[in-house]
Amino acid sequence: MVHCLHRCLATFSPRRRFPLLKWVPKYSLHAFGYDTIAGLTVGLTVVPQALAYAQLAGLSVQFGLYSSIMGGFVYCLLGTSKDITLGPTAIMSALIAPLVHGDVVYATILAFLCGCVQLLLGLFQLGFIMDFISEPVIKGFTCAASLIICVTQVKNLLGLQDIPRQFFLLLYHIFAKLAETRPGDATLGFLCIIFLLLLKVIRCKVEDVDSLTVKIAKKITWLASTGRNVLVILAAALVSFAFSSFHLQPFVITGEVQPGLPTFHPPPFSEERNGTVITFSHIVQDLGTALLVIPLVGFMESIAIAKAFARDNKYPVDPSQELIAIGTTNIFGSFLSAFPVTGSFTRTAVNSQSGVCTPAGGLITGVLVLLSLQYLTPCFYYIPCAALASIIICSVAPVFDVFFIRDLWRVKKLNMLPFVLTFGLCFYEMQIGILVGVAMSLIIALYPLTQPTVMVCYTGPVVVLQPRGALLFLGAESFREVIQSKIRQVEPQLSVILDCSWLSSLDYTAVITLRELQAALQAQRLRLAFVALHADVLDVLLRADLPELRHFESVEQALSWMLGSQDTEYHLDVHSGI
Amino acid sequence: MVHCLHRCLATFSPRRRFPLLKWVPKYSLHAFGYDTIAGLTVGLTVVPQALAYAQLAGLSVQFGLYSSIMGGFVYCLLGTSKDITLGPTAIMSALIAPLVHGDVVYATILAFLCGCVQLLLGLFQLGFIMDFISEPVIKGFTCAASLIICVTQVKNLLGLQDIPRQFFLLLYHIFAKLAETRPGDATLGFLCIIFLLLLKVIRCKVEDVDSLTVKIAKKITWLASTGRNVLVILAAALVSFAFSSFHLQPFVITGEVQPGLPTFHPPPFSEERNGTVITFSHIVQDLGTALLVIPLVGFMESIAIAKAFARDNKYPVDPSQELIAIGTTNIFGSFLSAFPVTGSFTRTAVNSQSGVCTPAGGLITGVLVLLSLQYLTPCFYYIPCAALASIIICSVAPVFDVFFIRDLWRVKKLNMLPFVLTFGLCFYEMQIGILVGVAMSLIIALYPLTQPTVMVCYTGPVVVLQPRGALLFLGAESFREVIQSKIRQVEPQLSVILDCSWLSSLDYTAVITLRELQAALQAQRLRLAFVALHADVLDVLLRADLPELRHFESVEQALSWMLGSQDTEYHLDVHSGI
Repeated sequence: MVHCLHRCLATFSPRRRFPLLKWVPKYSLHAFGYDTIAGLTVGLTVVPQALAYAQLAGLSVQFGLYSSIMGGFVYCLLGTSKDITLGPTAIMSALIAPLVHGDVVYATILAFLCGCVQLLLGLFQLGFIMDFISEPVIKGFTCAASLIICVTQVKNLLGLQDIPRQFFLLLYHIFAKLAETRPGDATLGFLCIIFLLLLKVIRCKVEDVDSLTVKIAKKITWLASTGRNVLVILAAALVSFAFSSFHLQPFVITGEVQPGLPTFHPPPFSEERNGTVITFSHIVQDLGTALLVIPLVGFMESIAIAKAFARDNKYPVDPSQELIAIGTTNIFGSFLSAFPVTGSFTRTAVNSQSGVCTPAGGLITGVLVLLSLQYLTPCFYYIPCAALASIIICSVAPVFDVFFIRDLWRVKKLNMLPFVLTFGLCFYEMQIGILVGVAMSLIIALYPLTQPTVMVCYTGPVVVLQPRGALLFLGAESFREVIQSKIRQVEPQLSVILDCSWLSSLDYTAVITLRELQAALQAQRLRLAFVALHADVLDVLLRADLPELRHFESVEQALSWMLGSQDTEYHLDVHSGI
Repeated sequence: MVHCLHRCLATFSPRRRFPLLKWVPKYSLHAFGYDTIAGLTVGLTVVPQALAYAQLAGLSVQFGLYSSIMGGFVYCLLGTSKDITLGPTAIMSALIAPLVHGDVVYATILAFLCGCVQLLLGLFQLGFIMDFISEPVIKGFTCAASLIICVTQVKNLLGLQDIPRQFFLLLYHIFAKLAETRPGDATLGFLCIIFLLLLKVIRCKVEDVDSLTVKIAKKITWLASTGRNVLVILAAALVSFAFSSFHLQPFVITGEVQPGLPTFHPPPFSEERNGTVITFSHIVQDLGTALLVIPLVGFMESIAIAKAFARDNKYPVDPSQELIAIGTTNIFGSFLSAFPVTGSFTRTAVNSQSGVCTPAGGLITGVLVLLSLQYLTPCFYYIPCAALASIIICSVAPVFDVFFIRDLWRVKKLNMLPFVLTFGLCFYEMQIGILVGVAMSLIIALYPLTQPTVMVCYTGPVVVLQPRGALLFLGAESFREVIQSKIRQVEPQLSVILDCSWLSSLDYTAVITLRELQAALQAQRLRLAFVALHADVLDVLLRADLPELRHFESVEQALSWMLGSQDTEYHLDVHSGI
C-alpha cells in the first residue's frame, strides 16, 4: 500500500504524463508526411470496422464511429507508443454486447466507468494488476471470443432473423433455421470473405518480390490489401444500391443511420425505460464485476499490442501511462456516446506498416472519422449486414490459435487447466470464464505454498530437517504434520534440528505453529534447535518470544549442544547479530 | 484434483470411518462411570447455554435444545476426539442470526446445506481448505464476534425493546434508549454476571489448594463452578417465579416454550411467507456465500478445539473424519429442526476436566437434553432473558484476546492487515469480514511471487543473473523488466548468463517470457545461456523448443563459451540428462 503510494508520488513528471512534450519539439515535415499517410490508411480501415463492431456490440452502426473519434485525439496527447491506435475492437464489442442489451445509455456509462477505473489504476501505478492474468487465461479468452464472434456473425452472413444471443441457443437456432438462409445474403457474404482472403494473400505474395519494375504495382496491391475492408464495403454497398434502384433488395441492409456528429455532453447517469427510472446505482449493480473485468481486458489487449510493437520498433512503453491514456480516452469517449474502446491489433499493424512516426497519425484518423460522419452517413444506408459480418469474421478468425494449444500442452500440461476452464466457461459467460481462469491460475501458483518442502537428513540420535522456501499460513498445518510424523517414525522419539538455511520467510501463523511445536516437543522432553536462520526470519522469531529459542550457526554446533557437550553451546544472544 | 481423488480412495477403511470400532471392544465399566459423570456435567452446561444461544440466533429457546440432541449421538459414532462436544455455540449463533431473520425454515435449511458441504469436504479429504484461513483472520473474526455478541446482549441485560440487529444501529439505539432501562432486568443481569464471575474465580482459587481435608469442599465448589450456568438460571427462574406468584413481573421472561420432543422429518425445502411461496433455489440464492463461510467457520471452531485437546491429552484427530462427523451431525440435526452446530470450547473443557474416557459421554448428554425437553419446558417459561444474556456475555467475553493483538503487532506487523480488515469488516457483516481477510492474507502470500528475486553478479564482459524461487506468471513481467533494465544499464549491452541453481519452477507464461527475452537478445546480437537448471525446469524448457537453448553445468563453462573459446562449448544434448 505504502509502496504504491510512494511509487505514485515519486514518478510524477510532466514529461512522463504528457509524452507529446518529448516528440512535439522535434516534429518535422517529413514525419508529418508519413503520419498523414498512416492516419489516412488507418482511417480507411477503421470506418468499415467501426460499423461492423457497433453491430457486433448490438448498437446502431453510428456508435462505432462515435467510439473511433476520441482515440486518436487523446492518445496523441497522452500515449507512449507511436504505433498503437485506440478504437472499437471485435473482442471488446463481443464482451460488452451481453451487458448492454443494445442500450446506448448502458454502453456509455460502461465506457465512462471503465475509463475511470483505468485512469485510477494508471495514476496509482497499479498496472501490475495485469500480471494476475496468465497467458493461458488470455489465450483461453481470446480463442473462445474469436469462436463466439465468428458463430455470432454466421447469422448475419446467412441473413437469419430472430436468433438469441446466448451462445448455445444461438448455435441451436442457426442449425434449426438453416433452411431460412437468404440466398442473397449468403452469396454476398461468402463472396466478400473470398475477396477479403484473396486481397490478404496477394499482399503476402507481393512482399516476396523485390524488383524495381514492379514498385508501382506493389504499391497499388499494398493499398488494395490494406484498404480491403473499404473496398469490400464499397463494392457491396454499390451492388446493394444498384439492386434497390430497381426496387429490389436481396440483402439485409444497415438502414437509416443518424447523420452528423455526436453532441458533446456528459454521459446520462440514469435512464427511463418503460416509464420507470433506472438509477445510476442500479446500473452499476447491474454491471457488477464487469466494472473490473472490462477495464482489465481492455488494458490487457492494448498493452499486449503496445509491447509487441514497442519491442519490434525498439522504443519503451510505460504501462501506467498507457492506462492513463486509455482511461482518459474512454472517459472523454463517453461524452460522445462511445462504448469502451481499446487497442486494435489490425489497425495498429496497418499504422506501423504505413510508416507512422508519432502518435499524431491518430489526429488524421480522427478527422477522417468526423468527416465520414458528417458526409457519408447517407451511403451507410445501403451497406449489407452480410458484408459487415464477413469483415468481422476475417479479422477475428486468425485470433483462434491452434499452435498455442499444442505448445501449451507440450510445455506444461498443468497450465492447460486454466486455459480449458477459461475457454469452456467463456461460452457460458466471458467474464465468468476470465474470473474462474484467473482464480485457477492463482490456485496453481499457491499450491506449492500449501505443501512446504521439508528435506530430511537423519544424523543418528537427532532428526535434522530442512524446510525450503516460505513458511506461511497456507503451509503451516502441513509443516506441523510433516515434522510430527518424522518424529513419530522413530522410537524413542528424537529431538529436532531445523536447518533453516533455505527458509526464506515466516509469517505469524507459522510462528504460532513453531511455538506450539516447541511446546509439544518440550512436553515430551525433546529439544528443538534452529540452524542458520536468515537475519529477518531470526528477527521474527526473536520478537515472538519463543520460550527457549536455540539458534546455531551450523548443524554441527547444534548437534554437539543436543548431545550434551555443554562447552560448545552457543546461546542465542551470541548469534543474534547474524 | 487427481491428488484429491487419489487420497479419497486410498484412505477409506471402516475403522477410519467409524472410529467407535476402535474403542467399543475395549469399553469398560470404569470408563462408563467416568463417561456418565462427564455426560451429566456437560448436560447441565448445555441446557442453559442452548436456551441462550437460540435466543442469540433470533429463534425460540427450544430450538437451542433441538440443536443439542444430535451432536452426542452422531459424534459418538463418527468422532475421533474423546473430548469434543458438538452443539450450539455463541459465535455460530451470532453468525447465522442475520441470515435467518428469526425464520426456523431458513435455519434448518442452512443446517442441512452446511452439513452437506462439510460432509462432501470430508469425504473428498478437502479438510486442508482450512489452511486458507490464517491465524490473524481467525482471531480478527472471533474478537469481533465476541464484541458484537456482548453488545447485542446488553439490550437484553437492560431489558431494552425494539433494538435493530445491525451493529452500529444497535449501538446507537442502546445509547439513545439508555433511559428506558428496566431496573428489574438490569439489577438481575448484573447480579448474574457477578455471581458467574465469582463462581468462576472460586474454582481457580480452589485448584491451588491441595490438602486432603478440603477434598469434599473442593468437589462441591468444582461442581458449583462447573454448573454455574445452571445455578444462575435456576436462581433467576425461582426469583422470577416468586415475583409472578405475587402477580408481579419485573423481568422480561422467556415466555411460552413449545413442550415435548421435536418430530423427526426432513427439513422443509420451501416456505410460504405472506401468501407467496419461497422456493428452495430462492433460499439458496439468498444464503449465497454463507453456504461456504458457515460450514468452514463451523469446522474451523471445531477442529481448533479438537486439536488443542488432542495435543493436551496426546491422541490423534483426523480432520477429514471430523468434517464427516460434524457434517453428518448437521444433516441429521436439520431433521430435528436444529440450526448449524459446531464444537463448543467451554463444554469441551468441562467434558475433558470431568474425566471423559470415550465419545460415549455425548450419549448421556443427549439423553439429558431429551429429558429436559420432555419434562422441563414448563419451567423455562419463567427464565428471565437478562439471566440468559449474562450467561452469553460471560462465556464469550474471554474470547476477545488483547494479548494476541500485542503479540501479532510485535512479531509481524504486515499480518496486522488481514487482522484489522477482518475485525473491522465483521462489524459490517461477519461473512464479508472473513472473505476479505482471507483474500488479503492470500495477496500477502502471493506478493513475493509477483516480485521474483534476481541476484546480480557482474563478471566482466557478461551479466550473470541468478533468479530465485519460482518464476510464475505473476512475476514474469517483472522478471523481464529486471533483466532488460540490467542489460540496458551498461553500454555496450551485454550477453546474459542465467544461473538457475535457485530457480525452483517455471510455468507456461514464464516460458513465453524467456522465449521473448531470448528473441529480443538475439535481435541485438546478444547471447543467453542457462546454467545449472534443475531437471524438471530443464525439461520444461526443452519441451518449449527455445530456438537456441544453451545450458551449462557451471557459470565458468558458460563464460568460456560466451567469450568464444569454442573448445569448451557444451551443447545442450550433452547435458540434457542432468
